[in-house]
Amino acid sequence: MSAPLADQLDIVIPTIRNLDFLEEWRPFFQPYHLIIVQDGDPTKKIHVPEGFDYELYNRNDIERILGDKAWAISFKDSACRCFGFMVSKKRYIYTIDDDCFVAKDPSGKPINVLEQHIKNLLTPSTPFFFNTLYDPYREGADFVRGYPFSLREGVPTATSHGLWLNIPDYDAPTQMVKPKERNQRFVDAVMTIPKGTLYPMCGMNLAFDRELIGAAMYFGLMGEGQPIGRYDDMWAGWCTKVICDHLGVGCKTGLPYVWHSKASNPFVNLRKEYKGIFWQEEIIPFFQNMTLSKSSTNVEECYLEMAELVRKGLGHIDPYFTKLADGMVAWIEGWRLLNPKA
Amino acid sequence: MSAPLADQLDIVIPTIRNLDFLEEWRPFFQPYHLIIVQDGDPTKKIHVPEGFDYELYNRNDIERILGDKAWAISFKDSACRCFGFMVSKKRYIYTIDDDCFVAKDPSGKPINVLEQHIKNLLTPSTPFFFNTLYDPYREGADFVRGYPFSLREGVPTATSHGLWLNIPDYDAPTQMVKPKERNQRFVDAVMTIPKGTLYPMCGMNLAFDRELIGAAMYFGLMGEGQPIGRYDDMWAGWCTKVICDHLGVGCKTGLPYVWHSKASNPFVNLRKEYKGIFWQEEIIPFFQNMTLSKSSTNVEECYLEMAELVRKGLGHIDPYFTKLADGMVAWIEGWRLLNPKA
Repeated sequence: MSAPLADQLDIVIPTIRNLDFLEEWRPFFQPYHLIIVQDGDPTKKIHVPEGFDYELYNRNDIERILGDKAWAISFKDSACRCFGFMVSKKRYIYTIDDDCFVAKDPSGKPINVLEQHIKNLLTPSTPFFFNTLYDPYREGADFVRGYPFSLREGVPTATSHGLWLNIPDYDAPTQMVKPKERNQRFVDAVMTIPKGTLYPMCGMNLAFDRELIGAAMYFGLMGEGQPIGRYDDMWAGWCTKVICDHLGVGCKTGLPYVWHSKASNPFVNLRKEYKGIFWQEEIIPFFQNMTLSKSSTNVEECYLEMAELVRKGLGHIDPYFTKLADGMVAWIEGWRLLNPKA
Repeated sequence: MSAPLADQLDIVIPTIRNLDFLEEWRPFFQPYHLIIVQDGDPTKKIHVPEGFDYELYNRNDIERILGDKAWAISFKDSACRCFGFMVSKKRYIYTIDDDCFVAKDPSGKPINVLEQHIKNLLTPSTPFFFNTLYDPYREGADFVRGYPFSLREGVPTATSHGLWLNIPDYDAPTQMVKPKERNQRFVDAVMTIPKGTLYPMCGMNLAFDRELIGAAMYFGLMGEGQPIGRYDDMWAGWCTKVICDHLGVGCKTGLPYVWHSKASNPFVNLRKEYKGIFWQEEIIPFFQNMTLSKSSTNVEECYLEMAELVRKGLGHIDPYFTKLADGMVAWIEGWRLLNPKA
């Protein structure tokens, strides 16, 4: 198996409940270092099969390492994975859920997700103009007639958002209305999300460049004690996209696919989501209209500015957003603690 | 063969040099009315095989019908096709080049381009937020988690931009550098180009709703007596996209594919394109930054306002743009002549 950048990429997994998860991924993941962040009871033992190189963090570790900033990491929720982003020392991160397995391409070949994500991250993005033949840097493709030559160098890629065959990533209402829907369409494309356009970033199958965007990849406050769930990746998606646009780096979506095996319980999901479902109607326009100041020239500065905009702009919806703004600040403090400037 | 909306769609073809073109398309095109616009010498006879319902316009017809506005229709260039858009009485237009043939999907089935274009046009567009599973209205797909419910009705679709297998639509420099490149990737997707994002609209395989955007589908001044060529569809693409964004209607791209059989001569293309290649570096930012006034509430008003913006904003590049602005005004006058308000 090809294992590109095995020394420069960590795989972050929020807990592992499925024992067959790592066995199935073994040919692809074994060359990489794993960071497992246990999302619940720290006394529960997580079984990691022989042969994997990993470190495991439970709640006690997070408390010990982050001290009075540990509250900003969600508890009993897969949003805790962002602690792994913070604690990693590598340039690239790949994160995946433990109910996602190896998908096959239309020819029946197992898909090497890391190989594709790394291709996506190492080739430029093109956020300023749309290329109708999709990723112009893929083999057999290029920029089409009418694409400005001045934009053909592209910009660095910060995020590679992969997709899911079988169970699509639907919200609870859609799950309930279409319980039998399965995603069977393999769309053989990677594309840059244009500048100024937001997208629903899902954390199930996601890679990013820590140097370019890591400090904004905070998954918010979810789980125990919080009024919403299942918006951790959405929150990170809105924040990172606005910052990528501001800093002139790119976000891609499309290949690679994973096989998403199991729909989560739509009733539980509805309870977690229902506030988010109406809050997002206001949050999304808020992010769409957000302008960061020119003086914010790196991710950390952008993120701190954004925290204050969230406090002022969303605080009226619910006191939660004031706490979230505090969490964003605490996250950057934690990030700086673990990632001191050289 | 399925022939949806056969009474509401005209097929516009700019001349027909390939005798086998209509024979190959017969099963798909015969139920529709054809409008053939002859791009060159009016004395040359165009052969249309038996059984097709068509009308044919040559230069003399255009002069007779448009009188002192006829100069705005390009001569000796496929840009003349827009006369067909103007003279049609139908709601929908499909336009195709005569070197495009029936493509096959990965299962080997011939692709019914009109069926797919009409599906694209009759289902809404989603320009305000990106859906990672592409067209949410396709069978087997929907809006993903995190897509605002308030945006799920979408907006009407004005344009359906189809793609090309085999010979990709490259500019002359790319043709020269990659003479052997063929597009063999069938991407099974349709998507909305997000609001605020421009794209290189190609006229080879294009459908649109005349009511929603027809009056802006002017292919500019190309061919004999003009300093550029091969920017007719690009021009129409920039103008229509800005107007669609302003009016809140959508532009889709992706399926259906045609089989593009023949690369045009790159040396001839380079001569036609070279001014456009550097002018577009200024024209595209001009369109990206364009704001139409709120008082322009329909396509004709938008287009007339745009003509004046072009005159003021691009006139300094070359006197051509002043003439093009005049052409845009003459186009609307012609449009109104042939499409009087009820």
